[in-house]
Amino acid sequence: MRFFSDNTGAASPEILAAIQAANHGLVTAYGNDPWTKRLDECFGAYFGTEVRAFAVATGTAANALSLATLSPSYGLIFADVEAHIANDECGAPGFLSGGAQLCLLPSEHGKVTHAALAAALEAHPASVHTLQPTVLALSQATELGTVYRPDELGALCQLAHEHGLKVQMDGARFANAVTFLGCHPGDVTWRAGVDVLSFGATKNGALAAEAVVFFDPALVRDFELRRKQSGHLLSKSRYVSAQLLSYVESNLWRRNAERTNSFAQKIAHAAGRLLLHPVEANELFLALGPERKRALRQAGFEFYDWGAVSSGKARFVVSWDQREEDVLALCEALRGLHR
Amino acid sequence: MRFFSDNTGAASPEILAAIQAANHGLVTAYGNDPWTKRLDECFGAYFGTEVRAFAVATGTAANALSLATLSPSYGLIFADVEAHIANDECGAPGFLSGGAQLCLLPSEHGKVTHAALAAALEAHPASVHTLQPTVLALSQATELGTVYRPDELGALCQLAHEHGLKVQMDGARFANAVTFLGCHPGDVTWRAGVDVLSFGATKNGALAAEAVVFFDPALVRDFELRRKQSGHLLSKSRYVSAQLLSYVESNLWRRNAERTNSFAQKIAHAAGRLLLHPVEANELFLALGPERKRALRQAGFEFYDWGAVSSGKARFVVSWDQREEDVLALCEALRGLHR
Amino acid sequence: MRFFSDNTGAASPEILAAIQAANHGLVTAYGNDPWTKRLDECFGAYFGTEVRAFAVATGTAANALSLATLSPSYGLIFADVEAHIANDECGAPGFLSGGAQLCLLPSEHGKVTHAALAAALEAHPASVHTLQPTVLALSQATELGTVYRPDELGALCQLAHEHGLKVQMDGARFANAVTFLGCHPGDVTWRAGVDVLSFGATKNGALAAEAVVFFDPALVRDFELRRKQSGHLLSKSRYVSAQLLSYVESNLWRRNAERTNSFAQKIAHAAGRLLLHPVEANELFLALGPERKRALRQAGFEFYDWGAVSSGKARFVVSWDQREEDVLALCEALRGLHR
Amino acid sequence: MRFFSDNTGAASPEILAAIQAANHGLVTAYGNDPWTKRLDECFGAYFGTEVRAFAVATGTAANALSLATLSPSYGLIFADVEAHIANDECGAPGFLSGGAQLCLLPSEHGKVTHAALAAALEAHPASVHTLQPTVLALSQATELGTVYRPDELGALCQLAHEHGLKVQMDGARFANAVTFLGCHPGDVTWRAGVDVLSFGATKNGALAAEAVVFFDPALVRDFELRRKQSGHLLSKSRYVSAQLLSYVESNLWRRNAERTNSFAQKIAHAAGRLLLHPVEANELFLALGPERKRALRQAGFEFYDWGAVSSGKARFVVSWDQREEDVLALCEALRGLHR
Repeated sequence: MRFFSDNTGAASPEILAAIQAANHGLVTAYGNDPWTKRLDECFGAYFGTEVRAFAVATGTAANALSLATLSPSYGLIFADVEAHIANDECGAPGFLSGGAQLCLLPSEHGKVTHAALAAALEAHPASVHTLQPTVLALSQATELGTVYRPDELGALCQLAHEHGLKVQMDGARFANAVTFLGCHPGDVTWRAGVDVLSFGATKNGALAAEAVVFFDPALVRDFELRRKQSGHLLSKSRYVSAQLLSYVESNLWRRNAERTNSFAQKIAHAAGRLLLHPVEANELFLALGPERKRALRQAGFEFYDWGAVSSGKARFVVSWDQREEDVLALCEALRGLHR
Repeated sequence: MRFFSDNTGAASPEILAAIQAANHGLVTAYGNDPWTKRLDECFGAYFGTEVRAFAVATGTAANALSLATLSPSYGLIFADVEAHIANDECGAPGFLSGGAQLCLLPSEHGKVTHAALAAALEAHPASVHTLQPTVLALSQATELGTVYRPDELGALCQLAHEHGLKVQMDGARFANAVTFLGCHPGDVTWRAGVDVLSFGATKNGALAAEAVVFFDPALVRDFELRRKQSGHLLSKSRYVSAQLLSYVESNLWRRNAERTNSFAQKIAHAAGRLLLHPVEANELFLALGPERKRALRQAGFEFYDWGAVSSGKARFVVSWDQREEDVLALCEALRGLHR
Repeated sequence: MRFFSDNTGAASPEILAAIQAANHGLVTAYGNDPWTKRLDECFGAYFGTEVRAFAVATGTAANALSLATLSPSYGLIFADVEAHIANDECGAPGFLSGGAQLCLLPSEHGKVTHAALAAALEAHPASVHTLQPTVLALSQATELGTVYRPDELGALCQLAHEHGLKVQMDGARFANAVTFLGCHPGDVTWRAGVDVLSFGATKNGALAAEAVVFFDPALVRDFELRRKQSGHLLSKSRYVSAQLLSYVESNLWRRNAERTNSFAQKIAHAAGRLLLHPVEANELFLALGPERKRALRQAGFEFYDWGAVSSGKARFVVSWDQREEDVLALCEALRGLHR
Repeated sequence: MRFFSDNTGAASPEILAAIQAANHGLVTAYGNDPWTKRLDECFGAYFGTEVRAFAVATGTAANALSLATLSPSYGLIFADVEAHIANDECGAPGFLSGGAQLCLLPSEHGKVTHAALAAALEAHPASVHTLQPTVLALSQATELGTVYRPDELGALCQLAHEHGLKVQMDGARFANAVTFLGCHPGDVTWRAGVDVLSFGATKNGALAAEAVVFFDPALVRDFELRRKQSGHLLSKSRYVSAQLLSYVESNLWRRNAERTNSFAQKIAHAAGRLLLHPVEANELFLALGPERKRALRQAGFEFYDWGAVSSGKARFVVSWDQREEDVLALCEALRGLHR
């Protein structure tokens, strides 16, 4: 019973069907195919505004390429200390930008706070001797399974823009966030002030498909060249584009997110006071300690330690194809820990 | 009737079947899955020696990451002037290596000659003021559809090694080359002195799958970190690995290559004296001129100009899923040009 | 009466004399001259061990090039939060290394503590998903004017080495530190475990001269190429080398440091409880507040605010050519603030 | 009797006097000093137009930083095959730009021809798969000691601009070129269409001083940050600026260039039919062969082989401080070779 990560999940049947449906005939390569050509329209309809959307195969590519487009080598990127770009991408933003540095902000349950951003901006005035503040990088949902409200985002983006920064959003679990909020996808992106979004599909049921969505088209050419130059333009682009079209247009994004979110809520209810953070997406963080960890593992539950082992913390992630009986078993086991 | 590129082809049914077969259950992400774990063994058996093999989604990534592993930022990479890394990858080797430069050698029908390499090595003695010669990059089959013989490769690799260079091979059409030669895959790689191979599957029937094969395991850790840092480690690695396993172990590589090679031979026969280069793989280059180009296009044949339009040259590439009747029609049309 | 920075100082007469003495005849360029050839011997005698020493014109170059030699693009460099490389070099280490990131540690009076380093190492275990810890970067004297004791350095270096890290030291004010400690230069470098030192001379009386001193010669070739590739190999190297030879061999380093250190002690005594940090080199940090700052500035003293203006902090730096009467005037003015 | 390079020369007395004159008092560091503040005005007067001018210590820095400002990582820089940036800077332009590649053009006596540039531009149409042509890099005087005429430059710049390229000029021996032409400095820079100039002083009598002169001020901020980030902003900037001011304003540039040019003409006259290229600056290239080389070296003349030793070519460079008797001796020896 694996609760390691939503990356352990398979691909949804709808995704394989879309790939299969695209698998006929000779079509122009490198994005000049009927599927890829529809990406802008598809994501424009989804977000309710004109956008430019580009497919890549990994979330790290989506994040690091969009950041490299927004930030020169001497840029300073503000992100929360828990961010995926800081901890799980082997320095990809610094590498693809040629040297930009991350400035990690303290976070509350994985969220950048307005106060922390304001303090960081004050502490980093730009001179020729310093890195130039260029980007605020946010995650929605966050790495701790929490979700920014539209007004929180709006205030952060406004502060960032007032200081000349662009806002990039890591949306690896964007579907979970939108589903949790019950809002329109535009409410937590362009309407709030987000400039570029890494729209993830892989964790939520795709095989390997992420979209970089530009709400400001001015930077698009630079991005396209960076994507190619870093080896991220797929020759047979139809397959990644077909995944994205199916994921968005068939509402797979919402169906899968509703399933994982609701399972996460069940588990959260069972975990009760063991919870370290509010559960607003498909991730749960529990203060277990060594005894409870051992008990759960002996009972067949697989999950990652979170942080140093000595902290006793654990992370559970619900995949779109998690079996309901495993979720119920986990709930039962967690309730058992309270007795 | 499209003869644009083998990238226009779809994916072979065997490939989709392999993906489908891998599409069940929760498996550890980022390469720690049963399919990926078998890559070393699979490619070891294929090449007849111990190797380390890594999957990526694009040929540009395979080439540029392997070159970046072999060459520091101050490295000089020798390649023929027709090379894909020189003309079609938007500078990826220079970018992912942090600045390495290509030194382009004149080629004979797309091949680096021993004399050209020797001259280049003599012309580039290493001092602290110069880029340091680090890599000889070869393509097998070449970008002009020709194929190095094992002894040609052996002599080039020996010369390179004598000067302290490593040898990287772009094998985007490796299957076509091996099939044409009727040799063992080891004969044109490690036995000849190749250190790292970009083993292509995408052009020859995969959906998106390339392997970087190291015949010298010492550099592997650096490669793994570079792959991750550039966003090329796939989270759901099972799908790319399943493609590679199926492609190699089901002999799909040979079946598809035999088909495209034999079609190319038919077309070559029909093209006769219009041919610019020997046809040894699945690409043909013809001296057509504007009149014949127009005639062929009006007859429904789609193909790319090669070089400047004014040169009158054209390239035709046969895909694994090219319809036989289209090939026969092209042959007929080409024969008509001679009358 | 300027106490802005030791970079505001002129060059010592001994330095100009050394330049003048080197200014005759045609000598081989790019380091193959009699002055440069003596650098290894000169610094070997100074440190009491075999070294390789290289001249550059700026401290940023010395720091960032040595870090780039020690750290690949996917490296993580630990440094204290006050470090010059973090705040005053516009991201040079990240740039020249192709993307390495700094991990900033909390400091006590500008020093990395053993506990902070141990915690950071525990929090950054290396996996393929993370930046690889590669370097501990220390400053001696620190950016806050304090000085590591030999045993403090030894313990930090040992911990770093146990985790596979190299140790780089920013010695922009190395002379001040050694003079304060009254120790042998080797005691706070190679004997304590430092692998590479940026030995600064510019702030302490040179015109533009820093040495990168390798106590481990294995990395030297890579450094030499990086120095050239980044434009830091001086064609007329004799002049920078002549400065360094004179600085070290005429004991100018000590004479100037003794002067600035003793002036700083005088000022520290006058500042008393306004001091924010122990004064162990030629920098002083005072908690002044707006009133006292205004008073001092009206009295003709020039100095920088330290941190945000609202903090009320100020920095005073004593240059080697600071006039004694200005120092005495500052002491008098500071004493007046207490009344 | 050394004719190795103009980098073997010492510094002119005027330069040391200027350094000495600047060597008093505490002045703000990092360019905020009275000397540096006058650079724009000084070079504006020199070129007869508004400019922004920045000092660096090496020619490699001047060239590579200006190219990095003009070219993103995916840029293609056209230069002649003899260019210093191609052969003598260890890949600095590729490194400081993060990956840009040089496209080397055949040259006639070291000059890019209009036909060669036109052919290269046609051969490199920009698509997302290719490096983007960004810069034409010219050298004045060239690496083979020849000099572009104003109308040659004008035609090249016009062609470059028509294709959206910027023009960068390596003026390491700019003074020799202007002196040879007897023209106004503006005639071979901004009036001809040059966008950025690396204005060299080191080879012609300075100690270590080059200026990057922007005729288009729009790119200046990016350059300033790149200069700092690569470690090329000098803390005690007054000294490099004082050299430049003296060099330009005292007409030292012209006096030294007239001397070296006239000596070169004398030697050229003596060399006669041994000359490989027209002599228009202070460099001479001779077809000597092994016998004549040996004879000259036995007679005490020191010079570099040019190209492969087997070619029998040799380079002689006249420094500003070359002794007249040595020049006359060389003339005599060369005349002896004809007998």
